[in-house]
Amino acid sequence: MKPLFEPRSIAVIGASRSPGKIGHTIMKNIIEYGYKGRIYPINPKADKILGYKAYKSVLEVPDEIDMAIIVVPEQIVLKVAEECGRKGVKVLVVIASGFSEVGNIEAERKLVEIARRYGMRVLGPNIFGITYTPAKLNATFGPKDVLEGPIAFITQSGALGIALMGWTIMEEIGISALVSMGNMADIDVIDVSKYLAGDPNTRVITIYLEGLKPGTGRKFIEEMKKVTAKKPVIVIKAGRSKRGAAAAASHTGSLAGSDNLYQAAFKQAGIIRAYTTEEMFDWARAFASQPLPRGEETIIITNGGGVGVLATDAAEEHNVKLLDPSPELKEKFKKAMPWFGSARNPVDLTGQAIVENYVEALRIAFESGEIHNIILLYCRTAILDPRDLAKAVIKLYEEYKETNYSKPLVAGFVGGEDVREAVRLLNKNGIPAYPSAERAVASIAKMIWYMRYLNKIKSRK
Amino acid sequence: MKPLFEPRSIAVIGASRSPGKIGHTIMKNIIEYGYKGRIYPINPKADKILGYKAYKSVLEVPDEIDMAIIVVPEQIVLKVAEECGRKGVKVLVVIASGFSEVGNIEAERKLVEIARRYGMRVLGPNIFGITYTPAKLNATFGPKDVLEGPIAFITQSGALGIALMGWTIMEEIGISALVSMGNMADIDVIDVSKYLAGDPNTRVITIYLEGLKPGTGRKFIEEMKKVTAKKPVIVIKAGRSKRGAAAAASHTGSLAGSDNLYQAAFKQAGIIRAYTTEEMFDWARAFASQPLPRGEETIIITNGGGVGVLATDAAEEHNVKLLDPSPELKEKFKKAMPWFGSARNPVDLTGQAIVENYVEALRIAFESGEIHNIILLYCRTAILDPRDLAKAVIKLYEEYKETNYSKPLVAGFVGGEDVREAVRLLNKNGIPAYPSAERAVASIAKMIWYMRYLNKIKSRK
Repeated sequence: MKPLFEPRSIAVIGASRSPGKIGHTIMKNIIEYGYKGRIYPINPKADKILGYKAYKSVLEVPDEIDMAIIVVPEQIVLKVAEECGRKGVKVLVVIASGFSEVGNIEAERKLVEIARRYGMRVLGPNIFGITYTPAKLNATFGPKDVLEGPIAFITQSGALGIALMGWTIMEEIGISALVSMGNMADIDVIDVSKYLAGDPNTRVITIYLEGLKPGTGRKFIEEMKKVTAKKPVIVIKAGRSKRGAAAAASHTGSLAGSDNLYQAAFKQAGIIRAYTTEEMFDWARAFASQPLPRGEETIIITNGGGVGVLATDAAEEHNVKLLDPSPELKEKFKKAMPWFGSARNPVDLTGQAIVENYVEALRIAFESGEIHNIILLYCRTAILDPRDLAKAVIKLYEEYKETNYSKPLVAGFVGGEDVREAVRLLNKNGIPAYPSAERAVASIAKMIWYMRYLNKIKSRK
Repeated sequence: MKPLFEPRSIAVIGASRSPGKIGHTIMKNIIEYGYKGRIYPINPKADKILGYKAYKSVLEVPDEIDMAIIVVPEQIVLKVAEECGRKGVKVLVVIASGFSEVGNIEAERKLVEIARRYGMRVLGPNIFGITYTPAKLNATFGPKDVLEGPIAFITQSGALGIALMGWTIMEEIGISALVSMGNMADIDVIDVSKYLAGDPNTRVITIYLEGLKPGTGRKFIEEMKKVTAKKPVIVIKAGRSKRGAAAAASHTGSLAGSDNLYQAAFKQAGIIRAYTTEEMFDWARAFASQPLPRGEETIIITNGGGVGVLATDAAEEHNVKLLDPSPELKEKFKKAMPWFGSARNPVDLTGQAIVENYVEALRIAFESGEIHNIILLYCRTAILDPRDLAKAVIKLYEEYKETNYSKPLVAGFVGGEDVREAVRLLNKNGIPAYPSAERAVASIAKMIWYMRYLNKIKSRK
């Protein structure tokens, strides 16, 4: 699998000089994203493509080829696959479509047969490519400027995958790997997840799943158990409704199967299930930067009663245990707020709160042995600029980061444009931040859920 | 109630020359937002405030005063309220805090007593003010540039209200009225809702509610029934968890009561319940611009199988009935897409779809008698710029808007920065658009729910 993520050389079969063509965009993305390996465009009608010498066939390339990206029409895919086999290519990334997704099962079967014969692996067909940011590899025809980070994203839907690629850039979500699965003729979600479980650049794996290959359910549970023992896995299983399952079947040809079966499988395998793409990336953000919780006791610190109440509701809904602070702890919090504030949980610093109140309360929260997890809330007030608060929180967070006091912290900031800036600033500096209290609570809830899961499997051993 | 929304003259008691002070910010907002009535700052120590002649007391003002905004410390609120009564002021907007929310019930009782004696109404105390954009009135100390539109927002939480005020500006959500309720010593959520039900500038009412005044539950149901018969009402009831209820009680002093009771009351009253602020405004956006559904049959048009599946799941979850298109209708859709597209529902135009495919499919959907509601989805693809699509959709939408073919349309566009632009463009032009399929589906689901409710109450008559 390593050549799929860190190829030393790439042939783009069907590379094109015409902007707008997929074979052009992929070449361009590979080059411009900064891939450091060797690049060989393959095109019988061109001498040079985007400054690189072109070859008529992979067989003419005077070098070893790790990865061949196949962008030619379906009709000649098998021919070039055969050439790749003879050339000793290690992995085929088959962008080309026209296979099992349109009922052309025979060609897909032959493709795999050729690959097996030569010991090649196949990603696809019917995909938009693969990105692995630590290797500066963006071999997709999606957006170019994917941000580096520790979140892996595996997608069974191409169009959605590309769209979400753009969305991660806009939302400044850092990606390690982005893998389009397509028809999963050979390499499947399990293979990729297993590889990423051992990838030091990935901290959390997100998956858009429509369905497994028939007969792989048991294997999925067993193998994903091993993955989730190492890293959190968040899955959106689309096609959970009857009609959605039918739509999924016509879309990726996957046997969707009963949603109850998937639900049970996910539970057994320790997989976190998301229902919307927003949720999936929200939660991934938290796992990406925060240490795992060491306990259940959670505190909410806020400057607004209303968001405090919303967060409290969300905590109960998401099974987050709110700490009842000891009298001593309350005493400490009391000193960090105006007299009319509340030292109960939510700790309400009131609308009069300034940066110093927050810093003081956060310091108490980090240093208190009673508290395992911190939810930091803020409502835009006239007297406290959210960007100033964000900067102060980042500073404090850095201070505690590598210490024994380190604990998960998530933030929910509500307000307008300057609040959005503050949220971005926090996220950029490794503090998962959201534009609402509820999303912050849901995110820490999933971390706590995962902690419980890990504790459970540990206690079984 | 009219003087609360459209006062002909306003006295700001406690107006201040010092920037940063609440009494300054409110004056400034009133002036700069463009209020056309007369403004009288009241401050015994100033001659002029922000260019307006200041008076020592309302009693000195040589004019009638409709609204008095009270920003003085709690200790002198009763004194100035008495003066307002003698002056013949019609409504007091009591920004000042320090009343029942901190246990000072006696002062609040006296305030109401004074108001009653003189026939004045009281908004507050403990509020951030009121905005009514059709009158160019922003009498709050929140953000200034509230956008005009048909959504009313009533909030029992001040800090959250101000924060969301900023949020509506950022999200370009148009507001008719924004009312901070505070302690509801006199005017309550019911009064304001009833008034707005008759307000021609309001199409949908959103409410952040922590709790009703004790003993007003029955009245709430009866009165809100009348409101929802005229206009949709969306409520976030915070404090639905036990702990949240306790937090709400300590926050606004409201008797939160069992959530089951509220749930039953909302159902009876035809109120739509939201659980997050994002949901509330998402749904309000749909009601704000779209005609009410005339039936259940809903179609999904997409260029991405994946988002189609997600939308289908969401439709089932939110009880949206997806149409099974007749063979004739399928035949028509087939002509609007590449050969490998799907004319079933979701109608999948495929990733190859260009503007013309969408326009053609939308035209069919608008003109088909089988279809009552349209969910338009788009995934960012290289061949179709979302802004071009948005422009074409807006044009088509305008064409059908005032015709018999008019029907609810919502859009879910997924992708990066240019998709965000397209979403904004659609929203600006009256097409509710969201950055995900799921949110679009949830929004139309609430419109359909409301249609069912209205049909039910009509059939009872």
